[in-house]
Amino acid sequence: MAHSLNLAWLMVSSFLVMFMQLGFAMVETGFTRARNAVHTMAMNFVIYPLGVVGFWLVGYGIAMGGVQGWSALAPDGAAHAELGFHIGPRFFGLLGASKFALVTVAHDPPNLAMFLFSAVFMDTAATVPTGALAERWRFSAFVAYGLFMSMFLYPLFANWVWGGGWLSALGQNFGLGHGHVDFAGSSVVHMTGGVTALAGALVIGPRIGKFRKDGTIMMIQGHNLPMAVMGTFVLAFGWFGFNAGSTLAASEPRIAAIAANTALASATGALTSLFYVWQRHNRPDVAMACNGMLGGLVAITASCAFVAPAAAALVGVIAGLLVTWAVGALETRLRVDDPVGAIAVHGVCGAWGTMAVGLFADGSFGEGYNGVAGPVRGALFGDPGQLAAQAIGAVTNAVFVFGLAFFFFRMTDRLIGNRVAAEVESGGLDELEMGSQAYTHD
Amino acid sequence: MAHSLNLAWLMVSSFLVMFMQLGFAMVETGFTRARNAVHTMAMNFVIYPLGVVGFWLVGYGIAMGGVQGWSALAPDGAAHAELGFHIGPRFFGLLGASKFALVTVAHDPPNLAMFLFSAVFMDTAATVPTGALAERWRFSAFVAYGLFMSMFLYPLFANWVWGGGWLSALGQNFGLGHGHVDFAGSSVVHMTGGVTALAGALVIGPRIGKFRKDGTIMMIQGHNLPMAVMGTFVLAFGWFGFNAGSTLAASEPRIAAIAANTALASATGALTSLFYVWQRHNRPDVAMACNGMLGGLVAITASCAFVAPAAAALVGVIAGLLVTWAVGALETRLRVDDPVGAIAVHGVCGAWGTMAVGLFADGSFGEGYNGVAGPVRGALFGDPGQLAAQAIGAVTNAVFVFGLAFFFFRMTDRLIGNRVAAEVESGGLDELEMGSQAYTHD
Amino acid sequence: MAHSLNLAWLMVSSFLVMFMQLGFAMVETGFTRARNAVHTMAMNFVIYPLGVVGFWLVGYGIAMGGVQGWSALAPDGAAHAELGFHIGPRFFGLLGASKFALVTVAHDPPNLAMFLFSAVFMDTAATVPTGALAERWRFSAFVAYGLFMSMFLYPLFANWVWGGGWLSALGQNFGLGHGHVDFAGSSVVHMTGGVTALAGALVIGPRIGKFRKDGTIMMIQGHNLPMAVMGTFVLAFGWFGFNAGSTLAASEPRIAAIAANTALASATGALTSLFYVWQRHNRPDVAMACNGMLGGLVAITASCAFVAPAAAALVGVIAGLLVTWAVGALETRLRVDDPVGAIAVHGVCGAWGTMAVGLFADGSFGEGYNGVAGPVRGALFGDPGQLAAQAIGAVTNAVFVFGLAFFFFRMTDRLIGNRVAAEVESGGLDELEMGSQAYTHD
Repeated sequence: MAHSLNLAWLMVSSFLVMFMQLGFAMVETGFTRARNAVHTMAMNFVIYPLGVVGFWLVGYGIAMGGVQGWSALAPDGAAHAELGFHIGPRFFGLLGASKFALVTVAHDPPNLAMFLFSAVFMDTAATVPTGALAERWRFSAFVAYGLFMSMFLYPLFANWVWGGGWLSALGQNFGLGHGHVDFAGSSVVHMTGGVTALAGALVIGPRIGKFRKDGTIMMIQGHNLPMAVMGTFVLAFGWFGFNAGSTLAASEPRIAAIAANTALASATGALTSLFYVWQRHNRPDVAMACNGMLGGLVAITASCAFVAPAAAALVGVIAGLLVTWAVGALETRLRVDDPVGAIAVHGVCGAWGTMAVGLFADGSFGEGYNGVAGPVRGALFGDPGQLAAQAIGAVTNAVFVFGLAFFFFRMTDRLIGNRVAAEVESGGLDELEMGSQAYTHD
Repeated sequence: MAHSLNLAWLMVSSFLVMFMQLGFAMVETGFTRARNAVHTMAMNFVIYPLGVVGFWLVGYGIAMGGVQGWSALAPDGAAHAELGFHIGPRFFGLLGASKFALVTVAHDPPNLAMFLFSAVFMDTAATVPTGALAERWRFSAFVAYGLFMSMFLYPLFANWVWGGGWLSALGQNFGLGHGHVDFAGSSVVHMTGGVTALAGALVIGPRIGKFRKDGTIMMIQGHNLPMAVMGTFVLAFGWFGFNAGSTLAASEPRIAAIAANTALASATGALTSLFYVWQRHNRPDVAMACNGMLGGLVAITASCAFVAPAAAALVGVIAGLLVTWAVGALETRLRVDDPVGAIAVHGVCGAWGTMAVGLFADGSFGEGYNGVAGPVRGALFGDPGQLAAQAIGAVTNAVFVFGLAFFFFRMTDRLIGNRVAAEVESGGLDELEMGSQAYTHD
Repeated sequence: MAHSLNLAWLMVSSFLVMFMQLGFAMVETGFTRARNAVHTMAMNFVIYPLGVVGFWLVGYGIAMGGVQGWSALAPDGAAHAELGFHIGPRFFGLLGASKFALVTVAHDPPNLAMFLFSAVFMDTAATVPTGALAERWRFSAFVAYGLFMSMFLYPLFANWVWGGGWLSALGQNFGLGHGHVDFAGSSVVHMTGGVTALAGALVIGPRIGKFRKDGTIMMIQGHNLPMAVMGTFVLAFGWFGFNAGSTLAASEPRIAAIAANTALASATGALTSLFYVWQRHNRPDVAMACNGMLGGLVAITASCAFVAPAAAALVGVIAGLLVTWAVGALETRLRVDDPVGAIAVHGVCGAWGTMAVGLFADGSFGEGYNGVAGPVRGALFGDPGQLAAQAIGAVTNAVFVFGLAFFFFRMTDRLIGNRVAAEVESGGLDELEMGSQAYTHD
């Protein structure tokens, strides 16, 4: 019975995470211009089927091919032991190499459930760069990226943290806390998405007119702010599945703490951004409040199971400040053009959330996590090694994901070209790249 | 295992209720003008984080601080007994006074789950007045209201009905049926929201131009009717969590009756409004059909667990008539300007739904509810005392919530001012109050 | 406990299916013109309450009146045996005839749960023709249709397949596999909707200006493509409840395969349509990709529980091709005007999905389905009789549903008139038929 309940829980959570794709589509399309609305919407739409297929064929096997069954999901957990196959010793496990196209697990409920759950997680990461590269990305280059992300880039890092790879083994092998701990994906999903978005934005360059020759910066307004706000609600809704589903088990009463912490961090993130901008610029900027909520959600994702409500609220407050600062800094200092703030929300707050585990995990949960005895504790609760393991994971993500993504985008630039022609960009991608029109008025 | 299932049920229900915030945002923004779309959307967005934080810090402690564990949610329900602290004897319990900021229950699953579930209920009530005061409410005054509502006003009445307070004890103390019975919040949530909205609308006054000097009334059309219809669907979807989640237990098979009754009342409410207006004004008014559906949902909320399907359908029919009548009467007789019909839907139909328990509860459910032996029966099924308890609750809400809200809005008027300047209102609140623009077209 | 889990699963699935109504509303309204946006939205809105009431009063009794309890949903399944009443011997069962208005089952959880689940399934079928007949359907004729569909047409065919009727008995009586097998409704729901839509579109005729006298065809663009894409996401989300909920039991671990297959077929359907059109017309047509996703979803619905992931992907690929071809063929060859592609998506892909069970069911599931021993196998896995049973069901749907629907639409034409006046159509139905305006801009 517990297996049935857990399987149902994982299914419902998967559906909620899949629904987040709609939220991304709305936030990103709302924050871009009407002439590119079909293009932005289409990238967010197509990344879902594209990612599902890429992950089915290859990605799942790399990410989870080395995992030997999920005991919470099947009465006969042991029977799955033979399926696992991992390249490299656990000491330095690098990737899984089985279960491709689900052939060997075609009728195994735990693997099919984990495939779906993992696929929609991957798609969450994969859809982040569509925001940062919006309004100028050639659709064929985007499709190539979608396959690269779902088949290789995401699965590799996911393997290291969740598939039994080397980052998860930092505790067992080197005594660094419980190894790299990322409960629901601040690093695996959000940093990966945000760091890839940064690499892509650097390679593709800013939109025409964004950075003027005189050094001033053009504000390019989105065409539908209500759509972006509505999308934020959709994301905050689906995020409950994202975080609370990551127990893989409703028989784990910690789901209550996870959900409450998720709501609290989203709330303090939103309010911090709102009041900070209100104070500084004398207007309640709801777009920034949305980014603050998303930043709070991204940040609490790694630590949601390990911290007390007050700590969750603090994680959100800091995320709300960080996202506000990072949106500005990326633009004014790094001269990176990110139309929707994806790098700030997912990259920066993802890094912060990853570190937060190493600070605020209070020893109330995580007994035996990653094969290490005792609950997870951050530096403030007695285990500085945990903070080190978090830092190693975050730095690895920043270096490895960025490097591989940068290389990929540069290669694509040579082979296909990442960017539409200047006249297509000026005229709007909907008409010239997509052959469609978002809105007609009669 | 039953505890795990119930906890999961409560979590999923909480997510659905949280998602209703999107529905409110869409209905209210669709029914208001394009120049105020950001402002209306922003209020509906910000009330969620604002309410969560206010309820976390103070509200939950007042509403639920006196409750001593939820046995359906924890195997060790008894262990929570010590947490409860209630001001006043149970005879006349007035408020809880523990669990503030969740400090003492930071790792207690039932309390964390109930916090989230209660918080999104409160936020449902809190977002109602943003509709009635739309297109003229100063954002800072709205923020003050959000804190007042989430910290004090809602928690007090919620304590009286759901937190062990005096209204719930009317049965035990005075033999009035099972005391005030409100299964999922027709009075606690919807009347509270609607009555507060009425107080606010009276204090802030009508929009410029609404009531002309010659006595005629200007129809101010919403800017996006499809958005309002879509929002109604979102609300009807989330409402299933609202009502069926209020069992706090999926191990209670009554969830099937609750969900079916909810669907039926929503349907008869919508059809009654549709056909009534169609008959009278010769056009199928889909906006009124939406309000009819919402009215039916509000009305069935208190009685959904206690009545037969046919009675649920009748509750919806009467709600559909009431909401149609009340929308007109508020405008033409009371000269109250409520841009979205929030007072009619939540206040009037909330009162009707509260009374409906006292009429149609048929003795098929509610054994031991509020500590009174036997199932809940309305006057038509043999217990006129139940009708009296319902009336006492409704009148208390109308008097107490209205009084306190009216006082609060008058105080705010003096201290901050509830209303934006006339030129801001005429020019649109988006540009001058929010510094944002909802839509651009290129 | 298993009963409680299953009941909760059925409830959550019902909520998700109900939410699909929003998806239909968005897809159909997005694909039609702004001047008819209220009308299209209103039909999609009103069909939900209308269908619920019609199905409550009559339809459920016809569809499910002969079913004698669902053992997975109640510990005392046997106690429901007396409720069933079926006209005709099981050999040739034609319709149920009990449980009307739920009177005899007013407090029976399994029946109340099945009522809600069946009602939202019916409403899915019922909302399909509102797309094919959009932009010209008289609202009163639509209301008459809604009652006919929910009370009679859908319930009859549903009885034959899911209510113990003759199609489900083709295995027991004639040795044709497991009889007609439609796990979640490719024939019962989608073909019924699509075939009815075809009958309606033929009777009502094309929109003014669609087919010009010189033989050319006018492209009539929808007014909001992003809305249609968003609606597709909403449908794909709700579809998980549609398919995985059709186990009626979370204690059935097959839910994982069902959900994974659903995601895969939706993905391959979308990608196939996308790449096929891109190849042929040199543009990535996101509207067609949406129809491809919906076609894949429709097609996998019948077989989702019986096939391996690779087969599900193939079912989606073929659906993606079929829908692309059918959208064109209906217009250019049959000269049928279907503004949203409903006939191609639901009718054609529904028929394909029905047949796919008879091809790809691989014997991994369905032990004892429809009272026949052994698992379900298609022709490719050794049982050509199953393919015959599928064909009989599909042909029956095409003949019977089409015939009855055609007759109904012709009768309505005489009695009320299906079509608005030409000047109403040209001026837009919103102003002249609905008396409302979808959008205002100030």
